[in-house]
This record gives sequence, structure tokens and C-alpha cells, in this order.
Amino acid sequence: MSEFAQIPMQFVGPVKLSGPVINGEYEVPLATFETPLWPSVNRGARVSVNCDGGIMCTVVDERMTRSVLFEAPDASVALSALQRIKADFAALQTVVEGTSRFAKLINLNSQIAGNLLFLRFEFTTGDASGHNMCTQAAEVLMDYILERHPTLQYGSISGNYCSDKKATAVNGILGRGKYVVAEITIPEKLCRRYLKTTPAKLVQLNLRKNLIGTMLAGGVRSANAHFANMLLGFYLATGQDAANIVEGSQGLTMAEERAGDLYFSVTLPHLIVGTVGNGKDLRFVCENLERMGLNENRDPGENSRRLACLCAATVLCGELSLLAAQTNPGELMAAHRRIERKQ
Amino acid sequence: MSEFAQIPMQFVGPVKLSGPVINGEYEVPLATFETPLWPSVNRGARVSVNCDGGIMCTVVDERMTRSVLFEAPDASVALSALQRIKADFAALQTVVEGTSRFAKLINLNSQIAGNLLFLRFEFTTGDASGHNMCTQAAEVLMDYILERHPTLQYGSISGNYCSDKKATAVNGILGRGKYVVAEITIPEKLCRRYLKTTPAKLVQLNLRKNLIGTMLAGGVRSANAHFANMLLGFYLATGQDAANIVEGSQGLTMAEERAGDLYFSVTLPHLIVGTVGNGKDLRFVCENLERMGLNENRDPGENSRRLACLCAATVLCGELSLLAAQTNPGELMAAHRRIERKQ
Amino acid sequence: MSEFAQIPMQFVGPVKLSGPVINGEYEVPLATFETPLWPSVNRGARVSVNCDGGIMCTVVDERMTRSVLFEAPDASVALSALQRIKADFAALQTVVEGTSRFAKLINLNSQIAGNLLFLRFEFTTGDASGHNMCTQAAEVLMDYILERHPTLQYGSISGNYCSDKKATAVNGILGRGKYVVAEITIPEKLCRRYLKTTPAKLVQLNLRKNLIGTMLAGGVRSANAHFANMLLGFYLATGQDAANIVEGSQGLTMAEERAGDLYFSVTLPHLIVGTVGNGKDLRFVCENLERMGLNENRDPGENSRRLACLCAATVLCGELSLLAAQTNPGELMAAHRRIERKQ
Amino acid sequence: MSEFAQIPMQFVGPVKLSGPVINGEYEVPLATFETPLWPSVNRGARVSVNCDGGIMCTVVDERMTRSVLFEAPDASVALSALQRIKADFAALQTVVEGTSRFAKLINLNSQIAGNLLFLRFEFTTGDASGHNMCTQAAEVLMDYILERHPTLQYGSISGNYCSDKKATAVNGILGRGKYVVAEITIPEKLCRRYLKTTPAKLVQLNLRKNLIGTMLAGGVRSANAHFANMLLGFYLATGQDAANIVEGSQGLTMAEERAGDLYFSVTLPHLIVGTVGNGKDLRFVCENLERMGLNENRDPGENSRRLACLCAATVLCGELSLLAAQTNPGELMAAHRRIERKQ
Repeated sequence: MSEFAQIPMQFVGPVKLSGPVINGEYEVPLATFETPLWPSVNRGARVSVNCDGGIMCTVVDERMTRSVLFEAPDASVALSALQRIKADFAALQTVVEGTSRFAKLINLNSQIAGNLLFLRFEFTTGDASGHNMCTQAAEVLMDYILERHPTLQYGSISGNYCSDKKATAVNGILGRGKYVVAEITIPEKLCRRYLKTTPAKLVQLNLRKNLIGTMLAGGVRSANAHFANMLLGFYLATGQDAANIVEGSQGLTMAEERAGDLYFSVTLPHLIVGTVGNGKDLRFVCENLERMGLNENRDPGENSRRLACLCAATVLCGELSLLAAQTNPGELMAAHRRIERKQ
Repeated sequence: MSEFAQIPMQFVGPVKLSGPVINGEYEVPLATFETPLWPSVNRGARVSVNCDGGIMCTVVDERMTRSVLFEAPDASVALSALQRIKADFAALQTVVEGTSRFAKLINLNSQIAGNLLFLRFEFTTGDASGHNMCTQAAEVLMDYILERHPTLQYGSISGNYCSDKKATAVNGILGRGKYVVAEITIPEKLCRRYLKTTPAKLVQLNLRKNLIGTMLAGGVRSANAHFANMLLGFYLATGQDAANIVEGSQGLTMAEERAGDLYFSVTLPHLIVGTVGNGKDLRFVCENLERMGLNENRDPGENSRRLACLCAATVLCGELSLLAAQTNPGELMAAHRRIERKQ
Repeated sequence: MSEFAQIPMQFVGPVKLSGPVINGEYEVPLATFETPLWPSVNRGARVSVNCDGGIMCTVVDERMTRSVLFEAPDASVALSALQRIKADFAALQTVVEGTSRFAKLINLNSQIAGNLLFLRFEFTTGDASGHNMCTQAAEVLMDYILERHPTLQYGSISGNYCSDKKATAVNGILGRGKYVVAEITIPEKLCRRYLKTTPAKLVQLNLRKNLIGTMLAGGVRSANAHFANMLLGFYLATGQDAANIVEGSQGLTMAEERAGDLYFSVTLPHLIVGTVGNGKDLRFVCENLERMGLNENRDPGENSRRLACLCAATVLCGELSLLAAQTNPGELMAAHRRIERKQ
Repeated sequence: MSEFAQIPMQFVGPVKLSGPVINGEYEVPLATFETPLWPSVNRGARVSVNCDGGIMCTVVDERMTRSVLFEAPDASVALSALQRIKADFAALQTVVEGTSRFAKLINLNSQIAGNLLFLRFEFTTGDASGHNMCTQAAEVLMDYILERHPTLQYGSISGNYCSDKKATAVNGILGRGKYVVAEITIPEKLCRRYLKTTPAKLVQLNLRKNLIGTMLAGGVRSANAHFANMLLGFYLATGQDAANIVEGSQGLTMAEERAGDLYFSVTLPHLIVGTVGNGKDLRFVCENLERMGLNENRDPGENSRRLACLCAATVLCGELSLLAAQTNPGELMAAHRRIERKQ
């Protein structure tokens, strides 16, 4: 007998987007216990609709991965198996085609550690985030490889070199999920009007807090204030596997002055999102995806790329707003108190 | 106008716990789109009730933190300010007492980077996870310090050296949230019966996948298979700020053979959880906390420590079950397919 | 007017090596102020000559890299430039051929961060470690690209995504320098005789100290006791740029019991070494290389691969010996004191 | 029979220093195979002597550490042992006093991972870098603890949580070695004259290359161009254990415009250096230390703090010069070629 956790949800925006993937103004849903997130993202959204072009989103890359682990007697056997597996790449692709209409094997990475061989398979997975599709393909690939390489033994269907729901460096360097950059240029006047700050103050805060502060904390491939908050809200509201905010929240906020105005961007190298698959059949999810126009029939992958852009733009809005608040002493708690009084 | 995201939720267990903080058998709620998580955690729970003592939980430490950022003209001024601030620690504690009935300042850490001074305040916060309590205290502390140290300037109310909702090293090294270890010893026979594996296979997989695989992936202070999944489910079902799974999911799984049996433990150095505060007033959250007996009047902090133990034990159950599955070729997807057919 | 720092140097060994790259027994030179390193490495060497096959070395990969940085107006322009640059890869290879007889461009990686484009060029460089060869090639490549892509501007000839003399994750994941695995299987009896320990004790120590301990310390892609010591000694004695021990010392020690015996390996994913280039003309360097047979005329790259294997085997000897000592209470300092008394 | 590796060595400078620890102009020795380092550091030195105050050095902290590892039956036993050990801190201090005239125990940190207990002892060690002093003290501390805590067993005299000669996060967060900040303010005119660049260009390069580039590469607590080069040269020339450049090279370069001028600083949180101990008795080392006035009789620790400042200032000079060169297309290789032609 299953029930439901009822997470408070609201649409914020509209957020204005541009770029080759998606254009126009969209309201986006955020589900969260931390409801001050709504007005905060809303403030960023308001900036976006008042800037020429709004938030420009670029999808740099997309792929989904699964790493498997084999045991060899020694490194030299592991290496020669690896060389033959790589030479047999076209056959591996054919093997994968048999497992799913959407999964396509596009690349193969590896690590040899002592006598262990890690293979990291990279797939495209249509509009699904692709966790299960990749696991299934990886399973069949393992069988295929084990059969042809009797020197190898099964180690694990997942070798943690994937890397799923862990904060690591591999995903950003080799790619996993949607790699999205969202950018906006905000005139100095709008910065003051909507964000109560200046480009110079934001640039300085971003350098000191996000880049230097995170570095001192021992962060890995990460320099931002609170990507995790927006990702959680967006993931829950759109039926994503929200445990993927762990790696999703690793990303970079950049701010620089350009002729007195503010260039502001968020780089999210590994957003794991999809518009089909687990969670997407729930009624509120369907409604939310529909309201953002993501239920339309498009080429496979296109809806999920649009979703990734909407997600990245939402992250930008919330990041911009919080950073702006933190440039001014006392503003953060004052805003919290104001919001809590209202509720 | 706010609505709700409806996340499928189920109680799993009972899980059997022991140790100085909490004893007995408890059912625990998990909210997730990834419903195969329920039977998986259930399998681990079944092991726990069949082992003497079940899962023993130890709370090693607890505290909540906020780092603030000051700007000095140079490092030498930053250092002398720091030295005077430290010497004035008792006064800082008094300042904090005025901000909340529960917040107590217990320690102060620092970093000097060029001319920047980062202070990291550590508090106890009763049964609340303490985000806002700490921010509020930090704000008052900043005012107090800025008034007495005219050589310092406001940098940021959060300097990312806290570190909230980011995967870094600082939280595990200096402490943040509840530091919990959950341990179980599983007789070899039960390992085979319930987990379809052997201690030796689990030990080897943990070494190769969790420790070596994560290390190769460039993980930071992390070696586990999927803490994030259980944390997300538990956090959503108990009204926690689930964005804190980002750092919560950094932790260590250990497995070793002891006289043929399996010693298995999970170490979660920074669980951010509470039984009061944002999200805890929602009806389903109240009911869930009540069902675990966490609505009783106890000494401040005791309910949240019990919650942390229940959370850690749940993580152990899910981690144990997935690892066991991955020791056997083909088992993971077979289980997924079986579950999906049932639904 | 230049003089010399006189670093104490000694040949240790012989070390016994096997594998496709190099076979036989070799004495290896180590220059160091920490002279207890010599008897320690010697102990490991003694084990190697008493084991069938000695230390088997496998060169998994080799390449040298340089990353350059371009500035674009925005991410979308950066992406389209990147796509065209990749499509033009053959032309880039031709450009590189003109810069050196040995440098060959073999691959290209990239990162887009906001409006920044990082390109990471990978080269083979014959027997040279290749720092300057790559910088020179990168410079010409930048000129070529800037001329053809007026939307891009010069950012930096090195963008720190290379990554040279820094401990990062990128080198192990994408490759840089020689990727070498050195392995040995030590009968239990020899373990006791020469190392005064047992396979079980070494396996446990390696797990707890190198894997878990380094993880807790917040290490990145590293799990070993003291690779840095052997690398420094070997690099100084063979004319290498010893600042490359920074990334060279990131690597993995593995130990496992196999039918009662000890399997022990070191994985060094990014050894930056060469037999020609800066430092190699100094007389003591020439003599040392000659004594290891590395002055012979071989195919380009072969001498440096042999050198890399000798280096990895030396690392294995020292790592094995120190770990063995640390399995026993009191042994480490006793050995130090004994050695210091002798001197 | 021991010989010597002859590493080319030269004095560069003078470098001008100020601050509470050391003042005046000093020539500093650098031993390296990469001789273009000399003119590069010299350029930075020339800037220092032309700036008011030269390079201001601040020693933020100093301590040396060793972590030991105990095994307990479970986490709860480990925790209660830890609590009693901490309560017994004064006795531990007395124990250490018996081991050396200079070693003083000043602090104790810990980690509990499953059933493992890591203790990290922090000492002051006078003018020695203190490796052996700490190991010896740790050995005696272990004996003392094992005798009083029969529930604990010996794990390792070093648990890698120290952390020696590895790039980790723990040293910067908890402290190890000398924590030094070196700062300079360079008038815009001197920037152009000596460095052929502008403050704005240097600030931008530092942000993009050192902070963003290193972050993308998966660096840990590090953002600099080439600290490792200067550290190696300085360590070899002054008899330091140069394998400590591994962690020494983790540090932060900061650059910002201040009223048109350039503020430039290097933060080196864990320089392991000393003026007595291994390597310091070699003749060339004695001469080099003497030429920097570090052979004088001063309070214990003072000579080594002066040495640390000289080291940090040297790092600043080389870092400044290389970054300046990289702001201009083509300058780096042109300089290299010019230098090589001269030689």
C-alpha cells in the first residue's frame, strides 16, 4: 500500500529563454519544503524577462553512462583485453541496438587499476534520463564481453566510475547527462533596480565565495552558491530522480563586468534529466511537463533538451538572486523573515 | 497559490536498531519515484531483524555551521583581527545566546586566503537541523565583529566554507550535522539466505567498486554505492531539506570478514536532519515522525539524534542490499524487471 | 654563474623486472636527502629478485598534453567554434607536424565554462617528457585557430586543464605521461622472511591506511603510502623535471591475498618522464641512464617506456617495504634509528 | 658508497621582503634542471625591489602532524576511547615532552570510520620540519594509549590522515607546516614596465586559468600556475625534503585591481620547511642558509619562519612572472627560446 509525500509546489516565473534549443517565456514548477526559494527564483525570473534575449541556453553535450568492472589476472591481460574490446567497438554497438529502440552506444572509456579493468560505456538515450536503459545495455555488453574474453571475470555491473549520484570529477571531464550553459547579460540599471546590487559587487562576491570559498572547503569541480536548491525543486516537480542532484549540483557560476553591465552564467556539466521514464506518468508530473510544452511530439531527445534548458535557466535565476542578496549585509535574513511573516 | 508534488511513499521494514541512542524495531518511510528502492531496503531490513543486536548506531558528533567572509586590507591585518576574535570567544557565545533559545556557539574555525578572512562558526541547534538558526546567529555575530574591528569589511554572510549542499571535504573534517556510524555483523548463513551472496564476495566488491572505483572517478571523501537514494527517500518523507543529500551522500561503506561472518558498516559524517523546523508541520511529516516515535517530549536534540540513527540504519539496509545484488551477474536488472512487472 | 646542489645519490637494487617492455635485473639510482629511503627500497628490491618473474610492468598508455584557453562572446559561439575545430582535426595534426620531428597530435579534449573554451591537446613526444614540445605545438595551434576563428580571442597558452605539476583528476581520467602498472606476487614465506609480515596484515593495512585514510584526508585519485619519496629520488637521479612528482605521486597501491600469497601492485597513471631533453645532458644523468641501458639506440619512445617501468618498479619496492614496516608496531622508528646510527 | 646528483643551482634576486617575521633584501637559491626558472623568478624579484614594502609575508600558523590508526571492535568503543583520550590530553602532552626537547603536542583531531579510530596529533617542532620528531612522539603516544585502552589495537603508525606528501584537503583545513601568505601591491606603471602587462589582464588570467581552469581539472584546494617549480628549486637548494612539494604546491594565487594598481598574493597553507634536521648539514645547504642569514642564533622556530617567508616570496616572484608572460600570446615560448639560445 503506497501513499504520497506531499511536497509544497508552485510555479514561478515566467522565465525568458533564448537560444537554439528553446525560446520564449515559461513558468517553471518548483517543489520544496524551503518555500523562500519561490520568491528568490521569481526575482531572477523577473530580471530575465526584462533583459534582451533573456537567458540564453546552450546544450554543449548529452550522453548517459554506466561503468562495469572486470577482473583480470594481471594488468597486462587487462590491457590486451581492452585493446581487443576497443577494436570490436562496432560489434558492441550492434549488441546495444538489440536492447532498446533508443539506446545507442557512442563511446567507451576505461581505467586499468592493478589487475582490474573498468569500462565506462557512453550512450544516447532519447528523451529518457536513461539509468535503466544503460544498466540493461551494460548487462548485455558484459555478457557479450565475458563470453569472448575468458581471461576476464565478472566484477560488477556498476564500478562507480559511471558515476551515478556521487560527486566526482569524471562526469564533468568525460560527460554524463546534459551539459548546459545558461547565460544572461544584465544592464547595470536593472542590476540595481531588481537585484539591489551592482555588477562589481556581484563579480567580487562570486570570486570570493563561489570560487575561493568552495576551493578552500575542498570542493570538487564546483563553484556555486546553491544550485542544489533549485535542482531539487525542479527535479521533484518534473518527476526526475532527484538523487541525481548530488552530481547535478556540481557546476560553475561565472560573473564578469562587461562595459559596466553584468555578464552572469551558470555551467551545469551533468544534468541527469528526462521527459519519459520513471516518475513521468504521475499526474502532477504530466501536468507540469505539459504546462511547459514538453508533452509535444518532437524528435527523440528534443523534449529532454528543452527540459534541461528550462532547468538550467531556473538554476540561474535562483543563483543570481541569492548572490545578489548576499552582497548586502543583513539582506538574506531580512528576506527570510519577511517571507515567513507573510506565510 | 501553492499545490503539492505527490511523491510515492511507503513504509519499509521494520529495521532493528540498537545502541545508546535508540533501540528496537521501527518502520521507516521512504518517498521516491524509484520504487524498486522499497523492496531493496526491505531486504536489508529483513537481515537486520534476523541478526543479534540488529544495526548498532553510534552518534559520534553533532553541530551545525555557517561560514562568513570578511575582507581585510591584507593578511597581516586579517590575522591580528582573527587572533582578537578568538580571544573574545566567550563574548561571541553570549551574543549568540541572545538570538535563539537553542543555538549555542561551540567552536570557531578560520581560513585566511590573501587578504580574506573566512570564519566558520559551529553551533548546536537542539532538534532543528539549524540552517536558519545559524544564519541568524552568524548575522548578529558579523555585526558584532564588524563594529569592533573597523579594519574588517563585510564580505558575505556565507563564504561557502560552511559548506551547505555542496560536496566538499570540510564538513567531514571539521564536522557539520550528525556524524553517525551504523554497523551490523551478519552471520555467513544469513548472508547466503537473505542476500544470496557471501561475505568474501561483498568485501571484495566494496573494495573494488566503492573504494577503488570512486577514487578513480575523482570522488571526494566518499566511497559508497548509493547512499543518495536512501537519503532522498528518507529526507522527503520526514520533511528534511533534501538538497542536503548532496553532502549527506558523501560517506563510507566498510565490509570485512570476521571469522567467516560479515562486518558491514556505513559511516555518514554529515547528516543534516532535524525533527522541528521547516517542513515538519506538514501533516504527512507529522504522521511519519509520530509513527517512529519522534514526536515525544525528550531532551532537546534527542529526537533528532534518534532520527539520524533511523536514517543511517535505513542507508545501511539499502546499501547492503544493492551491493549484494551487484556481486552476482544479472541480478540487478532481473530484480528491476521483476518489480516493474509486479507494478 | 651557476653552481650545483649536491644531493646524496646511491644505486639500489638490483630490481628484477619482467613484461613486454623491459626484462632483467637493474640497479636504479636514487638521489635524496632522506637516506633511509635507500635501504627501504633495497628491501623491496631483494623481494623482487627472489620472486618468479620479479616485478611485471605494463605500460597502459602514453601521451603528453597542453591545454589552451580561448575566450568567446558566449557559450554558443564557443560551441560552434569547438565543433568546427574538431572537424578540422586532420589539419591540426599537419600543423603540429611542422613544429617538431617527434610531436604528433593524437587527440583533443575540451571544456566549455560559460563563454570560455578550454582545448586540451594530446601528443606523443618520442623519448622526451615533452613539456616544451607541447607548449611549442600548442602555440602554433593557437595561432592557427585564432586566425580561422575570429570569434575567439586569446585567453592563455596554458589553461590549467593540462594539468602540469598540480594534483588534479583530469590527468588520470584523460591521460598524461606514461600510465604504468607494476605488479608482483610474493609467496607467503618470502613475505615473512624479507618483509617480516604476512599477506593478510599487508592487505588490511593497505585498505585502512591507503584507501580509507587517504579518502578521509580528502585526497584526489590517490591511495598510497609514499610514492612521492621514490619518485623524487628517481627523478632527480635521472634528470627529470622533479616538480612533476606532484601529479606523479597520485596513484593506487593494491594488495590482495591470492591462495595465501600476496598480490601487490602500484598503478601510476601519469608518470612524466623522458630520456632526452632538459637535464639529460648533465654528466651524472648520462652515466645513470647508461648504467640502466637507456642510452642505446631504440625506436623513439622505447627508452622512455623502459625508464617509466624502472621508475614504477622502484616505487613498488619502496611502497612495499614501508607498508610492511608499518604493519608492525615500533618497526618504523627502530629502522630509522638503526640507519641513522650506522651513518 | 654514496655519490651526489649535481643539480644546477643559482641565486636569484634580491627579493625584497617586509612584515613582522623578516625584512630586507635577500638573494635566494634555486636548484633545478629547468633553468629558465631563474630569469623568471628574477623578473618577479626585480618587481619586488621596486615596490614600496616589497613582498609582505605573514605566517598565519605553524604545526607538524602525524596521524595514527587504531582498530576498535566497533564505532561505539572507538568513540568512548576517543572521549577518554581527549580528556587525558594533558597527560599526552607530558608523554611527548619526554621524547624531544622541541616537540610539543598542541592539538588532537580525530576521525571514526566504522570501527577504525584515526588520531591526528599536532605538534610544534622548533626549527625542524619535524617529520621524525613527530613519528617518534606518535610512537610513544601509541604505546601509551594502547596500554591504557585494551579495547584498542594497533592499526598503523601512519594512517594517511596526516597527510604527508600527498595532495589532500586535510592539511589546509586543520593545518600542517607553515601557513604563509605573501602579498605585494604593484603600481600599474611597474606592471607595464617590468611585466609587460596590465593589472586587468593579470586579474582576468588568474580567474580563468588558476581558479576556473584548476577547478575544471578536478584540483583539490589549489589554484595556481606553477608553485611546484619554485618550491622544488628552493627545497633542493635549502636541504628540505622536496617530496613535500606535493602538498606544498597546493595553494592559492589571488590578483585584484585596487585603484588601478595590482594586488597580488600567494597563499601557501602548508609549507613543510626547516632550518635544522636531515639535509641541513650538507655543505652547500649550510652555505645557502648562511647567505640568507638563517644560521644565526634565534628563538627556536624563528629561523624556520624566516625561511618559510623567503620561500613564499620566491614562489610569488615566479608565479607573478609566469602569469604575466601568459597574458601575452607568444611570450612564453619566445622567452624559453631566448634563454636556451643564450645557454
